[in-house]
Amino acid sequence: MTTSPFGLRYGVEVPFEPPAAWSEVIARQLDHRSVRSYRPDPVSDDMLTALIAAAQSAPTSGNLQLWSVVAVRDDERRTRLAALAGDQQFIEQAPLFLVWLADLARARQVTTELASGAAEGADFVEAAVLAFVDVALAAQNASLAAESLGLGTVFVGAIRNRPLEIATELGLPPHVFPVFGLTVGHPDRLAETAVKPRLPQDAVLHHEQYDLDQQAAHVQTYEAVLNAFYTTAGLPTGWINRVANRFGTIAGLNGREHLRQALHSQGFQLR
Amino acid sequence: MTTSPFGLRYGVEVPFEPPAAWSEVIARQLDHRSVRSYRPDPVSDDMLTALIAAAQSAPTSGNLQLWSVVAVRDDERRTRLAALAGDQQFIEQAPLFLVWLADLARARQVTTELASGAAEGADFVEAAVLAFVDVALAAQNASLAAESLGLGTVFVGAIRNRPLEIATELGLPPHVFPVFGLTVGHPDRLAETAVKPRLPQDAVLHHEQYDLDQQAAHVQTYEAVLNAFYTTAGLPTGWINRVANRFGTIAGLNGREHLRQALHSQGFQLR
Repeated sequence: MTTSPFGLRYGVEVPFEPPAAWSEVIARQLDHRSVRSYRPDPVSDDMLTALIAAAQSAPTSGNLQLWSVVAVRDDERRTRLAALAGDQQFIEQAPLFLVWLADLARARQVTTELASGAAEGADFVEAAVLAFVDVALAAQNASLAAESLGLGTVFVGAIRNRPLEIATELGLPPHVFPVFGLTVGHPDRLAETAVKPRLPQDAVLHHEQYDLDQQAAHVQTYEAVLNAFYTTAGLPTGWINRVANRFGTIAGLNGREHLRQALHSQGFQLR
Repeated sequence: MTTSPFGLRYGVEVPFEPPAAWSEVIARQLDHRSVRSYRPDPVSDDMLTALIAAAQSAPTSGNLQLWSVVAVRDDERRTRLAALAGDQQFIEQAPLFLVWLADLARARQVTTELASGAAEGADFVEAAVLAFVDVALAAQNASLAAESLGLGTVFVGAIRNRPLEIATELGLPPHVFPVFGLTVGHPDRLAETAVKPRLPQDAVLHHEQYDLDQQAAHVQTYEAVLNAFYTTAGLPTGWINRVANRFGTIAGLNGREHLRQALHSQGFQLR
């Protein structure tokens, strides 16, 4: 297989090298891979400060800054969180676990205590969307910043399997919800990681109007690319089956079928 | 005011320069600012390819890739979209408007037509969260990639003011929803932009457990920082009032109080 950054990302030979539009930042982005094996060395306070500054530098709708993050380093808490998040061992192993929060509590407090008294708008689906988008933009900056410092990361959606227990563990008040985790640490270089190929660009990029019908051919192309990738990695093959396993039945949601109720319990009314 | 990147980002003097943990990527992230004035020069196809490759390189839960993007360059369509998205002139001015989509249609098609037949899991709030987080992670990579190429961007949440009309304009099928736009273009250097200070890091970063009470003091600190920033920019002052204007009343949502119904109309059942 080609070693071109674009080629690795799409799992195919591509006709241009070096790319016509290129930067140090894009090189770093294309080189992303999930890291689930870490050395025990801690992530320094200076590094954490840099990651959070990068996160805060991401755009935020109307400068509302509807997110917070809890940095968990305590061994026992990481062990408990790992158990709550799908029993994933690497959460214990990583020296730093960042839990990213959709935070309407701060904005509500500002609105109700320092300004108009009511915070009616915060009860709508829109407020949740603002917060979930804000926290994702921020966390992606933090993850890329970590990689640029030689650290490895992986996002952990499984904290939504049992979000209310996560909320209790982290002392979250109403109107604060754990959206995903991010493990951060120095990669164990002995555990190899690879750039995972994505769908052909033509499947996700549409011009002027969206076109679903043209995607079927790209999905078949991708199925072959990913089968080759997984076979090399010694893993069960197939993108189609993986998608179907996730969405085919409620059981594929691993408890997250209760997410709406959990959001309600934490005060997200989703009107 | 200091010109230290951390100082600009927080609007205060900070004791370390150069920072102890630093990279080219972090420098670029900290330097982010919203750009709403563009020169007419087009964004090249090579640049667009690079932005989308960067976006696809972002993490995506379970490799599901639950997003798509429509690149709008057509003048008349940009004019219509600008009208639908809060009449914001810069959407017409920017040569490229990317509309980022939460896309459950592709995964549903894969699941129902190529695999198990049903896509029950895709009807839950969890599926929407997966897609909204996925698309935000991807778009943030694209935005930073654009900045690294000398382009400017700004996110446009106002496409959620009238999302069903946006969906019609872009030919979106059921199970595809427009989450936000991103204008992209070569910045008009004559229109100055500034790094906007964010909340003190201690307001958003918590250790081991979340603490709401300690945030009040940081909010007051920030109010003073932002008042100074806005006064310099000749804009109405205050973070507290801006937050309260957004959330105090339903009117502050600018139509987005109907977002839940709009999602339903596009097939997002949010069970």
